[in-house]
Amino acid sequence: MNDPLPDRPRVRLKPKANARALRHGAPWAYAGDLVTDRRTRALSPGTLAVLQDAAQTDLGLAAINPGSRIMARIIDRDSAAVVDQDWFAARLTRALALRERLFDAPFYRLIHAEADGLPGVVIDRFDAVAVIQPNAAWAELHLDLLADALARVTGVTTILKNAGGRARALEGLDDVSAVLRGAAPDAPVPVPMNGATYMADLTGGQKTGLFYDQRPNHAFAARLARDARVLDVFSHVGGFALAALANGAQSALAVDGSAAALALAEAGADAGDVATRFTTRQGDAFDVLAALGAEGAAFDLVICDPPAFAPGKQALTAGLRAYERVARLAAPLVAPGGYLGLCSCSHAADLPRFHGACARGIGRAGRSAQLIHTGFAGPDHPQLPHLAESGYLKALFFRL
Amino acid sequence: MNDPLPDRPRVRLKPKANARALRHGAPWAYAGDLVTDRRTRALSPGTLAVLQDAAQTDLGLAAINPGSRIMARIIDRDSAAVVDQDWFAARLTRALALRERLFDAPFYRLIHAEADGLPGVVIDRFDAVAVIQPNAAWAELHLDLLADALARVTGVTTILKNAGGRARALEGLDDVSAVLRGAAPDAPVPVPMNGATYMADLTGGQKTGLFYDQRPNHAFAARLARDARVLDVFSHVGGFALAALANGAQSALAVDGSAAALALAEAGADAGDVATRFTTRQGDAFDVLAALGAEGAAFDLVICDPPAFAPGKQALTAGLRAYERVARLAAPLVAPGGYLGLCSCSHAADLPRFHGACARGIGRAGRSAQLIHTGFAGPDHPQLPHLAESGYLKALFFRL
Repeated sequence: MNDPLPDRPRVRLKPKANARALRHGAPWAYAGDLVTDRRTRALSPGTLAVLQDAAQTDLGLAAINPGSRIMARIIDRDSAAVVDQDWFAARLTRALALRERLFDAPFYRLIHAEADGLPGVVIDRFDAVAVIQPNAAWAELHLDLLADALARVTGVTTILKNAGGRARALEGLDDVSAVLRGAAPDAPVPVPMNGATYMADLTGGQKTGLFYDQRPNHAFAARLARDARVLDVFSHVGGFALAALANGAQSALAVDGSAAALALAEAGADAGDVATRFTTRQGDAFDVLAALGAEGAAFDLVICDPPAFAPGKQALTAGLRAYERVARLAAPLVAPGGYLGLCSCSHAADLPRFHGACARGIGRAGRSAQLIHTGFAGPDHPQLPHLAESGYLKALFFRL
Repeated sequence: MNDPLPDRPRVRLKPKANARALRHGAPWAYAGDLVTDRRTRALSPGTLAVLQDAAQTDLGLAAINPGSRIMARIIDRDSAAVVDQDWFAARLTRALALRERLFDAPFYRLIHAEADGLPGVVIDRFDAVAVIQPNAAWAELHLDLLADALARVTGVTTILKNAGGRARALEGLDDVSAVLRGAAPDAPVPVPMNGATYMADLTGGQKTGLFYDQRPNHAFAARLARDARVLDVFSHVGGFALAALANGAQSALAVDGSAAALALAEAGADAGDVATRFTTRQGDAFDVLAALGAEGAAFDLVICDPPAFAPGKQALTAGLRAYERVARLAAPLVAPGGYLGLCSCSHAADLPRFHGACARGIGRAGRSAQLIHTGFAGPDHPQLPHLAESGYLKALFFRL
């Protein structure tokens, strides 16, 4: 963490680059925006440098990764900022204040990257355990300072590093996870949300073992769930199903391709004392949807929360077709007057496009619908106004 | 309410009209889409007719108003449907089931026009009192049937007709309100929402005396309000302020141009036992925002919920400038780390445009922001997937 202030390298924008956007809050400069001479290309990934416009006016302190398409990430508007433990602690303290205002218990996303002032860094908190995803080279380089500040600000005693993020490869980082502080939990951690208990496998699970982003959408579904027969497709660890059961659903069936995820869902149902109303079915979600249709199954509330079918622009057309297909297969399973929740976590499928795909699928199933609710990721997943891409999660609730 | 089924008139689409959209759920045909011969022009406003495509295939039963730009509103996909009390009762029953699932107490929008199967009809319920806005000619014509069905399905004992809606003039309807059943309440009605009590003046107030649409956004603001100093601009009857006070705000100041609205807000504060923490300031909201800025006032939570600055496309540019100005004047009043909620109920200002105006205003005030929440109208304001216009209400919550 050598950051010799006076000797900080300088990296300059090309005259054609949009310096104004960066000045007004945009957090990134791409490789094509920067003057990449031999000196810049030789900077080691994660180096802190002063970012300047073409007229050599400082724009701020940026983390540079010559090997990444996002070559500069502004981490402080003050180009003389000293990035030490206190610097990290100040950002963590500010982020913590929002979460403590919003949530009764210490289970939330504590740091959501750029919008929380730590570009490329994601931190999820599970009471005394925190999981850091350092998805940018500068974060990897400063991981020790960050972990120390995190322990100091939050009091967590265990800090895990999850290196499973896809973005790490783009930054030239490895995928080796580690225990940074304390001891890794030797069993899944119970997480209370919306009256339900979820089991999060923080060392073996997908990403950080649990997705906090759907919390408000789980809550909305739970309001529709009283006495309902619920189908939760792409259920992961039981997200919608367990929230529905905790709020009075008659029954819930969780479908997922992963036996490990469904085992965690079952453990959550046990922990929440709703196991007698809970069943699971392992298999390809499309196959199970089709099979349930063939069986003539009917539910009062069906929710489909698939993985990102359209993570990037190239996959958009195929992704929208997949979302339409989900809607077309799910709609026939909804009893008349029942509810259908359709989710997308695809960056590329924006709200109008996703909405269109859902409406087409419902229409092709021969059903008509009211849209009663549009939800996004919870408020512990803030967005930078200049980074529209961060609005990845959408949940549409229809009544059929 | 003579509706002699065999003799129903027929109204036909022009060949160039989009029959496919109507077949797939679009609810309206405009004057330019229809063959308007002398016979069609002679239909009295609100007449029920069979709508046909250019090839004379039935599209459904439509209410015709030759004097309105929206000349045909499909009210039933079955062109042989009999529109009697049972027909209205079926639609009301279906709408009621959604509201009873969503809300603990009988205070909600019961019918939200097209999406609830009653085009142009709005019904708000306040326990035993219902307020109907018949904003289309066919509804005016069938008002008696509707009122009878409403009393039967919901058990309300008082039914008021509110003829203040702007849309009525477009339909050639008068603005004379009336008491349809029971007796008008002789005092404002207390309405419980989000832990607060609001006073709704159902005979003298704006529209139906209370707006239910902001309920989930009030709830979100309330989550941010603990111990906070709150400023609620364009407060009407205290929407955000009273919800914040009910949820632990240290203080709330409500600003509105209407002394009558602020008096109701004060009565609500009394009824909710939060009056000691509540103050009001009557005046032009822009002037008051500027004055508070000059005074150096600081709040932890500022919310601005102005009237529609951009109700139509012609007003869009000026409207967006007004939203930007609100953001620019409000942002300086937010203490560091505090919250700013900005709302728009303009049809024409869609989410990206409104978001852009807010971000520009905040930026011009020299502040930077995270977007933590995007909210819409509550689920008792459903939308038809084919009528994107209905998504009029947006609420953006920023942290500065």
